[in-house]
Amino acid sequence: MIRIGIVGTTGYSAREVMRILAGHPEADIVAVASESSVGKRVDEVLPAFRNVLDLKCEAFDASSFAKRCDVVFIGVPATKSMAFGAALREAGVRVIDVGPDFRLKDPALFAQYYRAAHVAPALLGEAVYGLAPWYREALRTAQLVAVPGCYPISALLPLRALMEQDLTDTPVVIDSISGISGAGRSLNEAYHFPEMNENLRAYSLAVHRHAPEIEQELSHRVKVQFNPHVAPLTRGILTTITIHLKRTVNVAAAFARYGDEPFVRVLPEGTLPEVKHVRGSNFCDIGWVHDTRTGNLILVSAIDNLVGGTAGMATQCLNLMYGLDERTGLRHPGMAP
Amino acid sequence: MIRIGIVGTTGYSAREVMRILAGHPEADIVAVASESSVGKRVDEVLPAFRNVLDLKCEAFDASSFAKRCDVVFIGVPATKSMAFGAALREAGVRVIDVGPDFRLKDPALFAQYYRAAHVAPALLGEAVYGLAPWYREALRTAQLVAVPGCYPISALLPLRALMEQDLTDTPVVIDSISGISGAGRSLNEAYHFPEMNENLRAYSLAVHRHAPEIEQELSHRVKVQFNPHVAPLTRGILTTITIHLKRTVNVAAAFARYGDEPFVRVLPEGTLPEVKHVRGSNFCDIGWVHDTRTGNLILVSAIDNLVGGTAGMATQCLNLMYGLDERTGLRHPGMAP
Amino acid sequence: MIRIGIVGTTGYSAREVMRILAGHPEADIVAVASESSVGKRVDEVLPAFRNVLDLKCEAFDASSFAKRCDVVFIGVPATKSMAFGAALREAGVRVIDVGPDFRLKDPALFAQYYRAAHVAPALLGEAVYGLAPWYREALRTAQLVAVPGCYPISALLPLRALMEQDLTDTPVVIDSISGISGAGRSLNEAYHFPEMNENLRAYSLAVHRHAPEIEQELSHRVKVQFNPHVAPLTRGILTTITIHLKRTVNVAAAFARYGDEPFVRVLPEGTLPEVKHVRGSNFCDIGWVHDTRTGNLILVSAIDNLVGGTAGMATQCLNLMYGLDERTGLRHPGMAP
Amino acid sequence: MIRIGIVGTTGYSAREVMRILAGHPEADIVAVASESSVGKRVDEVLPAFRNVLDLKCEAFDASSFAKRCDVVFIGVPATKSMAFGAALREAGVRVIDVGPDFRLKDPALFAQYYRAAHVAPALLGEAVYGLAPWYREALRTAQLVAVPGCYPISALLPLRALMEQDLTDTPVVIDSISGISGAGRSLNEAYHFPEMNENLRAYSLAVHRHAPEIEQELSHRVKVQFNPHVAPLTRGILTTITIHLKRTVNVAAAFARYGDEPFVRVLPEGTLPEVKHVRGSNFCDIGWVHDTRTGNLILVSAIDNLVGGTAGMATQCLNLMYGLDERTGLRHPGMAP
Repeated sequence: MIRIGIVGTTGYSAREVMRILAGHPEADIVAVASESSVGKRVDEVLPAFRNVLDLKCEAFDASSFAKRCDVVFIGVPATKSMAFGAALREAGVRVIDVGPDFRLKDPALFAQYYRAAHVAPALLGEAVYGLAPWYREALRTAQLVAVPGCYPISALLPLRALMEQDLTDTPVVIDSISGISGAGRSLNEAYHFPEMNENLRAYSLAVHRHAPEIEQELSHRVKVQFNPHVAPLTRGILTTITIHLKRTVNVAAAFARYGDEPFVRVLPEGTLPEVKHVRGSNFCDIGWVHDTRTGNLILVSAIDNLVGGTAGMATQCLNLMYGLDERTGLRHPGMAP
Repeated sequence: MIRIGIVGTTGYSAREVMRILAGHPEADIVAVASESSVGKRVDEVLPAFRNVLDLKCEAFDASSFAKRCDVVFIGVPATKSMAFGAALREAGVRVIDVGPDFRLKDPALFAQYYRAAHVAPALLGEAVYGLAPWYREALRTAQLVAVPGCYPISALLPLRALMEQDLTDTPVVIDSISGISGAGRSLNEAYHFPEMNENLRAYSLAVHRHAPEIEQELSHRVKVQFNPHVAPLTRGILTTITIHLKRTVNVAAAFARYGDEPFVRVLPEGTLPEVKHVRGSNFCDIGWVHDTRTGNLILVSAIDNLVGGTAGMATQCLNLMYGLDERTGLRHPGMAP
Repeated sequence: MIRIGIVGTTGYSAREVMRILAGHPEADIVAVASESSVGKRVDEVLPAFRNVLDLKCEAFDASSFAKRCDVVFIGVPATKSMAFGAALREAGVRVIDVGPDFRLKDPALFAQYYRAAHVAPALLGEAVYGLAPWYREALRTAQLVAVPGCYPISALLPLRALMEQDLTDTPVVIDSISGISGAGRSLNEAYHFPEMNENLRAYSLAVHRHAPEIEQELSHRVKVQFNPHVAPLTRGILTTITIHLKRTVNVAAAFARYGDEPFVRVLPEGTLPEVKHVRGSNFCDIGWVHDTRTGNLILVSAIDNLVGGTAGMATQCLNLMYGLDERTGLRHPGMAP
Repeated sequence: MIRIGIVGTTGYSAREVMRILAGHPEADIVAVASESSVGKRVDEVLPAFRNVLDLKCEAFDASSFAKRCDVVFIGVPATKSMAFGAALREAGVRVIDVGPDFRLKDPALFAQYYRAAHVAPALLGEAVYGLAPWYREALRTAQLVAVPGCYPISALLPLRALMEQDLTDTPVVIDSISGISGAGRSLNEAYHFPEMNENLRAYSLAVHRHAPEIEQELSHRVKVQFNPHVAPLTRGILTTITIHLKRTVNVAAAFARYGDEPFVRVLPEGTLPEVKHVRGSNFCDIGWVHDTRTGNLILVSAIDNLVGGTAGMATQCLNLMYGLDERTGLRHPGMAP
């Protein structure tokens, strides 16, 4: 059994990691830390875990966690995990960070978008970007994994397979719609139920932190216009990408590389993915349409932001790090309905 | 009092026209037709209308409606209203069609997108496109009004003010998210509650019927890539438009033309509209963001697809046709929450 | 025109009063007070009111409001309105309080359930309980109206017509399901969108403040077991009442008294009401079923908690107070869909 | 590995059985039957199962299924499974029916409530009622399991522990609120998204088929008034039970019997369960409140209707039938958010 530590227990990302690992046959959660709930039982704070997890929340202590754990998942807000991650690496334990602090390779870009100086820039080179289908080999031996953002996963899985080719000179338009769990558990008037139910909104246009992450992982071959939206659902991201092509492209051939991927499912041309087919699962479904009238290629992807977009992808990384079948603990199909 | 007839009573568009006109001080609904409910009381079919509308559904009869009504609203599925509209015009009564049959000026384009030959092409020239802020003068004397589609209203109100200028050589990307009422009341597995709740989907990419309507009303100056989506809410459209600019544009100056519009509300730069602020109302809220990094202008608009996108716009047309204050019957602000 | 003042502008109840009065032909909102937004424009705080209400929020000042207004609506949290109401009555202006402070006639009961001493117990006798179908005559001359709670309206309209008869010796079971707007706009983890969406919960069993209000208005003939629940919708209350009968009752005859009520719609036996038929309207729909197997009578009612349960009922009271047709400003049927 | 057959693949119950068994380490789905999809791949009909289940739908053939399977799950509409179940038993294979045909022991009651004569009344005696905490021993050797209805599970788990005592002479009031997946996948105007979203309704008052099932499993000690409702969510049942006590009862002591139950979680007095804590899991959470003012005991339970209310309970039965740890394949806690 892999001995697991969890930091940031009560946040939505860490909860989902714990939910998935509760059904993972090789994982044993042995220590959990939560700043706001030190000394409380996990199931007192998170009643869903009654009868499931018999642990108390601790204060974070890197050396104590390092002694008891093989690997520690960190799920804390942006700019909070870099210090935790550095301390844990110092103490010699493997780390999987589901937050953003180790994703951007360029500390200057981090400072610009996250408005904080990076406290452990030396680790940015060591961190492996946890996009399993593209960093599989590096993940096997990774000591520090930066699990990608949920939006970037939904954009990069379709785009990376295509953007190795020089397809466009125009910024790629990425319109994403997300469920509200992506905004986390912090109270916010915008996400008070009567305010968000039956509502739609765009936000952070031109300034969202996931834009530079996407461009980095496309090797800066194109600029992206990232337009995020929220809709009244809890889980799921649907991303629609419009590429103004300057040359023809064989999309099916480019996507053939995903033929053996356990969790990337490329649909036949013209069949479009839906969130319901991936909800609660680690799958990313991808569809596409060629519009000959406009000369545009449109890609659409669907993930569950908390599973395929966060905790499921993190678990797939864990499986790679420990030589397990990548599907371990992730065998459930989408929950439809 | 303006004597009103309604054809297609039980559809969502006609219901909403009736709902709004029930509170309109100058409108008197005197006759309603419904193919599927002939002989039944309106409130038997639509219980919301108990104590509100004391009428029975009739079979459609153009001359009978023309005798009793000053104006007839038609709300029936695509390709069904052109014959009704032609018969009513023949009988000499004014017509407001909330369906698509009289929107496209080019019968060939109609045939291509609606897969039916137009039965009254001669009326296409007579029909006034019911986008009130742009066809105000023509609407005052219109005999036949083609109320725009809900998506086109959400796209054209922001775009027309800008696209008089030669801003781009790249297809404009229009990503829209709609509530499910836009799909009408016909049962469809895709919109069965457990299938659509907590779901997101794109549909009709590259082939949606509203794309040519938008291009027509932009005078074919640009091509549009229209990407429609549905999200789990009943009412509302949020449209995000990305324009790759080839020159600078003074957006605030362009939008100044809407200064006196009763129902178009242009927000300050960087403030984005939300569906909740327009729900149940005739308003269209517009926001915008300039992304200097990508050279793109992003416009966002919000409407209630059934009010500002259909029945409210139709009522505004009615008010113009009868010399009333355009706000008559439409004074409610958005229903938030 | 009736000159209207509003206190507590930004709360959900006051917003809804303003939304309805914006379409009321005899009402003119002339002054609005909001503790949290003094000096701000209403439409800055509530963007839905752009182009609708051209006013700034003031600090509350009873004498100033009394000079400028014919009637003042108060919509502030429990225990906050009694002082406002007393000051306004002192200043000589009519008051319609949509909060709970003047509903209970017994100050001891108020103290017990609201955990505060009543500051104006002398006004409790003067206050008219604003259940329009039952207090119509008193409302015409009322100086202080206590609009009932939303749950009590949904329970009392069906029950009062029946409980004049001595039907049962067993506590009446009132199970209500409410939309989340009933919980108000204060942020609360329970009503954070991802926590409440796809959730159901009961709350305040045995201790809810609306139980004594219901018993008072049933003249303490029966005890009620009031079981409130919330479900993931914004607006609406569905109340199911189970009465263990000790004698036979002619339900249709008892409900005949509502024959001329403009907003109470009694359905035929066996036809059950739904929230969708009343949403956005002032109607209360009532259905019932007799279960001969158990000897129980089951009543079901549906209202929109913010309209028929609060602001619509308050507007009906206003209409009575000023000799207007009770339907004025309330002619819209339910918004379905 | 237990070789599993599934009949009625495309219905919501069978889908959920397949979803759970896809993650069950000892179950291997080897044959699936679907009347409507013979010859099609499962993942063509149910895209969520791409990369998960590599099978084609067959026509149902009892002897063929009996040869290849150790146990067959049946998930077809009421009155359709009794013939399938009989044929499978005849062919000698174990059967777990998630439908209602084998639940009622009295064929006359079945005929009355399901309006069909039972075709295999002899099997009603053999069928074990699959309420695992109460029929554990019988389930170990069961050849035919009738998995309880979702509403009965939510009512019986709290009630059985108490109703062994003679607590009341008044019918017990059971008010349940269900998500829409409980109504199945058949299209129905009532459950068209725009009709059900933001709606609440009661239905089948006094005639619901689950009432006699509940009374049977309470040994007809009391009558129950079963009031089912639906609310706009996909999954979940919240059941509130009001018992007018004629004597005092030690509730905590009565519930102590659930101390070792893996999936029944009794909360401390006054703590109420919520659907979100059980969603996607096999847990049933139970809370209670004593109202000394009315002399009533109020019990509240929460389950996921498709897991704890159907497929999870069926899997727990499977585990018992094959001597596995009851938690096998069911270790996930609730999915919150």
